[in-house]
Order: sequence, then C-alpha cells, then structure tokens
Amino acid sequence: MLTLNVALSERSYPIYIGKGLIDGDLLRRHVRARQVLVVTNTTIAPLYLDRVIAALSGLQVDTLQLPDGEKFKTLSVLEQVFDKLLEARHARTTTLIALGGGVVGDMVGFAAACYQRGVDFIQVPTTLLAQVDSSVGGKTAVNHPRGKNMIGAFHQPKAVIIDTDVLSTLPAREFSAGLAEVIKYGLIRDREFYRWITVNIDALLARDPALLSEAILRSCQNKADIVAEDETEQGSRALLNLGHTFGHAIETATGYTSWLHGEAVAAGMVMAAQLSVELGWLAQDEVDGLAGILARAKLPVRPPQGMSARQCRELMALDKKVHDGSLRLVLLRAIGDGVVTADYDEAVLMRMLERDCVAGD
Amino acid sequence: MLTLNVALSERSYPIYIGKGLIDGDLLRRHVRARQVLVVTNTTIAPLYLDRVIAALSGLQVDTLQLPDGEKFKTLSVLEQVFDKLLEARHARTTTLIALGGGVVGDMVGFAAACYQRGVDFIQVPTTLLAQVDSSVGGKTAVNHPRGKNMIGAFHQPKAVIIDTDVLSTLPAREFSAGLAEVIKYGLIRDREFYRWITVNIDALLARDPALLSEAILRSCQNKADIVAEDETEQGSRALLNLGHTFGHAIETATGYTSWLHGEAVAAGMVMAAQLSVELGWLAQDEVDGLAGILARAKLPVRPPQGMSARQCRELMALDKKVHDGSLRLVLLRAIGDGVVTADYDEAVLMRMLERDCVAGD
Repeated sequence: MLTLNVALSERSYPIYIGKGLIDGDLLRRHVRARQVLVVTNTTIAPLYLDRVIAALSGLQVDTLQLPDGEKFKTLSVLEQVFDKLLEARHARTTTLIALGGGVVGDMVGFAAACYQRGVDFIQVPTTLLAQVDSSVGGKTAVNHPRGKNMIGAFHQPKAVIIDTDVLSTLPAREFSAGLAEVIKYGLIRDREFYRWITVNIDALLARDPALLSEAILRSCQNKADIVAEDETEQGSRALLNLGHTFGHAIETATGYTSWLHGEAVAAGMVMAAQLSVELGWLAQDEVDGLAGILARAKLPVRPPQGMSARQCRELMALDKKVHDGSLRLVLLRAIGDGVVTADYDEAVLMRMLERDCVAGD
Repeated sequence: MLTLNVALSERSYPIYIGKGLIDGDLLRRHVRARQVLVVTNTTIAPLYLDRVIAALSGLQVDTLQLPDGEKFKTLSVLEQVFDKLLEARHARTTTLIALGGGVVGDMVGFAAACYQRGVDFIQVPTTLLAQVDSSVGGKTAVNHPRGKNMIGAFHQPKAVIIDTDVLSTLPAREFSAGLAEVIKYGLIRDREFYRWITVNIDALLARDPALLSEAILRSCQNKADIVAEDETEQGSRALLNLGHTFGHAIETATGYTSWLHGEAVAAGMVMAAQLSVELGWLAQDEVDGLAGILARAKLPVRPPQGMSARQCRELMALDKKVHDGSLRLVLLRAIGDGVVTADYDEAVLMRMLERDCVAGD
C-alpha cells in the first residue's frame, strides 16, 4: 500500500493506494464515532456494498443507493441524502462514506459539507477518474440546469481510499475517460510524467496493474501538491481545469448525457492546446501528438457535431473562472507548463472555435 | 454610527449600527465587483428595496423577492436564488445582499456559501432578532422537515449593516421575539447587561431609540466575542443556543408556523433555567424573575399546549448538539454564567418536561 498526504494543516488527510483496501480496517480507522452512512449508486452497490458494510461491522451502518449518472447530480437527489441522515438520526459526529465515481463523491462530499453545517466524510472512489481527480482536493458540488458544479463547497475528506482492484469492473469507456485526467497532469505540470504516459499508453489501456498504480500515484501526487498550494482556487489550482471550460460547454450542450466528463475534457484539452498554438506557445506537432495519444486512449479529440462556435462561446461564458466579464482559460506555454490567463485575443479564440466546431445545420 | 469588529483573522468583518445606514455608501463600499443580487422578501421589498437599489446605482443590481416566513426556509426556495444568479450570469466575484430578517439572512448566506463554492455576501438585517443574533456570526442554513437548520454552512458575511430606523416598521410581536435573544446574552455571559435590561425593559419595549441602540450594540458585542472565540461551534459558541434545543422542539412540533423563533427561545430559556434549578444551580426566584421579564416583553414562558413531554424529548434528540447519543444542553450555573453540559440526570429532565408540558389530549 502506498500512502500520500494532502498537506492542509489541520485539514490534512491521507490518500491510500493499493489492492483490496476496501476490505481491511482502513475505513473503520477513519470513522470518528459510531454512525456511518454509506452512499453509493445502483451500479456499484451490487459489486462492492456488502464488502464495505462488512468492513464496518459493529457500527450503526446505514446505506443509500442513488441513481447512477451525471444527470442525477442535482439538488433534489442530494435531498435524499439529508432525508436518510435525518430519518436514521445521524448526529454531527457521523461519517459519510462515498462509494462510487465522481458523481457520488461530489454529492456525498457536498452533503457532508452541509449536513448540520459540516460532518466527516471518506472517499472510496471506484472509477479511475474519481481516483486520480475528483476524490482528492475537497471540491464538492451538484449541477444546475444552467451550469455544471455551480452549487457546492470546499470540504476536505478525512481520507481517500483507492482500491485499485475495483478498476477490474470499470467499463472500457469510463476507464478511458479517467486516462484523460491522468494525461492532464502531465500537460499542466509534469512533462516527465507526460512522456512516461506516451510511452506506456497501450499498457495502461490494457490495465497493467503495476503501471496503473504508478499512474494513479503520480496523478494523486500532482493533485495533492496543487491542492496544498491553493486549497480554494485563488490561483494555481485553476490549472487543474485544463480542458474543462471547453469541456463543460460540451457537457452542457449535450445535456450531461451522451459525453462522459473525461471525454469532454479530452476534446477540451485539444482545443486549449490548439489555442496555445495560435498564441505561439505550442508547436502544431505537439497538439497533433496530444490528439494522437488521446485517440490511442480511445478518447474524442473534437467537440460534438452540432455545437456551433457561438453556442460553445456562450456556454463558456458561464464558467466559474469569469472575472468581471473576462474569461480566464487554462492554456499551455509548453507541454508540462500550464498557465491561467485572460490574455488572449477574443478573435483568435473565435477563429479557433469556428474551425473546430461543426454546427449541425 | 457605531462600529464593532468580528475578529476572525482573514475573515474578520465590521458590524455597523446607526440610523439611516441603508441609504449611505456603506453598502457599496463592501461590494467587491460590479454585480450584486439583492434578496429580500415580499414584506420588506415595498418598504426598503428601492432605497437599497438607489444606494447601489451604477452597479449591475439584480433583485429577488422570496415569500415571507420560516416555512419557506427550504432547499427548494433556496434554488430560486441559484436560478436567479445563473439566469443573470453572476460570476464568482458577485456579492449577495440579504435584506430582511433571519430567514432571508440564513438563506442568502447559505446561497452565498454554495454558489460557485462561495461568494461574498452582506447582511442588512431588518428585524431586531436578525440584528442582534442571526446576521452576526456566519451561521447559515435552511430547514428540513425533520429539523431546523439541519442543512447549512459556516460562511461569514463581508459586513453587517444594522439600520436602527427600520425597526420602526417591525410588528410588535416580532420586536418582542428579538428581545428574547437580547435577554439571552445577559443570561449566558453578561450579568450586568441582564440587570440593565430588567431595569429598562419597558423603555426597550417602547422602542426608545437610544436604549435600543445600546441594547443592539451590547448584544452584538457579546455575540462577536463568542464567535471570535469559537467560529465553528467546537465549544463556547454553543452557549448561544440557550433555550434553543427546547425552542427548536417547540418550533418543529408546531410546524414552524404559529410560534416565532424568538418566542420559542423565550419559553425554551425558562425551561433551561428551570432545569438549572433542579440541578441546584439557580434559585427558583431567579427563574420566576426571568419569566417575569419575558412576560413583560410579551413573550411566552411555557411550551405550547398539546406538546407532550415525550414528544418534546424526542424532538430534542434531533438537535445538532447530540454527541454519540447524549444530548448536551445549555444550562445556567448562575445568571450570566451559561454552561454546555450533558451532565444532568435524564430522569430530572423528564420530570421537568412532564411538569412543564401539558399534552393536548
């Protein structure tokens, strides 16, 4: 088992990475009192819920299964968590456990942030994307019909328990979506890691256990470093949003249904890289190389057919990184050197969008 | 104008108390960027909304009127705030202004805590209760059908602007409810202030402007001191809940409709004081004196007819101060000396409840 620390003074917490971790006593060690609510979804419950319950025997263990999918990441589904907590009379000393992917993690984290103004929670991510990204760092949220993650909180977990065995049941498309975020860390701040990924992409896609553990560890280490530097996204943390402003526009345009988050981020990273070329920072062959790696990972590299440049730009304007009317984007000064900037020409952005976006009719 | 400071290092903020403050440039001075959403209710809007809008001229000022009343302090009404913010494209630099009583303040504060994971807000309390209590200290929340303030956050305002003129339009019953919280400060930590209130209760009830300003100032000073000591209620802040565990049980039992919060707290404070007598801490004549002052302030001093001791005890068990099954109560070791304790005999509590509660049938 590998252990990393997210250094946030009194809010610091460990990330454990290893095989079979959901069965041991790790979970229990991070439960504060005697009450636990395990929240999962209807896909994960039949696979792993019984094992988690067994690992918590002796405690008051309540469980809740949410419907599976980004479209259920809403305030009204969140209310089910509060209903369950109050129905089962959970006190302020309770611990919530998020057993699932990013949707479960984000919702349970937000529920933990708000229940009685803040209770403990533990992340047990079951998708690659959640393991390398959303379960670490304390960003929690639900979506609003007009924008993704618009309602949320910064609330750090007490521990993140990454059991690499659970990836064996992850569908191929979701596995690829997770790789998009792994590649992101290389692009924004770790050129050496990016090179390592490009060399090992086929073995990663084949889920080679040793390489996969290494990829998760290096991703989490990069994320933990950034979060420790900038917990509430006043500055450098925004780098983690490479591809996300374009990606959120894609997800909103397609109603959070047909594209996975990681897929939207993949196409968004190519768009951000392409804009970086227009600004003279990247070479075209570097963007082509990135698109090639993403394609090898079976990820999309262009926005969806039917989204016009204008629609894309309008949806981007809803991004949380808008400051007094100007939209800051994460771009690349070089591979491994991301930058958050509003210092680009709007006309250059529109030209890039018009070239990349193919409107439906 | 008087100014107090709530000392919370980088989250410190001023409380201004004075006449006509909603018209000056105070509001504007605490707005961070160019967007503002003023949230109020349908009772306050016709009285003061135009003046607040005028004070913010030159900014993008959006407004939202919520229905008036504790029963609208829900997640689904809260969603209207998010809808408005997104519809009018408010960025993370926006400022929310809460113009109203405790319900508006708690909801707008919670919306500000969650919108894009946290934006600025300013409290402009228009009831005595909100001025001396709920607008100061950063506790924000909405209710759940199973319990009051069960879903919320700690989120400090950027400023609290208390215009004492607005109390002239406050209905007598709400004014009295505010006095309950004023009296509370004396009981829990300021014996001298308590004595001052007992001497001046009739003039306060007649809304003598000078005495009223003094009462608000001393209440806010007590609250600011406690909040600075214990922002997130790990310890001494719980003293502020004197009468509230009993009071919340009353409010829940009566569906948040027939009793005002301050009225429930008044009856609850007498119950807490009575239990303190049973424990040998207070003299019976001190409780009788308290009940006398509250009655002079036109406040109830007993729980509602129809609430049984058992029902009261069950609703109390939902309180946020439950720790692993044991309920901590705020009691009085003496007038001016509150204590948070689970060190009382359950049988003594039940005996007190059975004597005080008169079940309906």
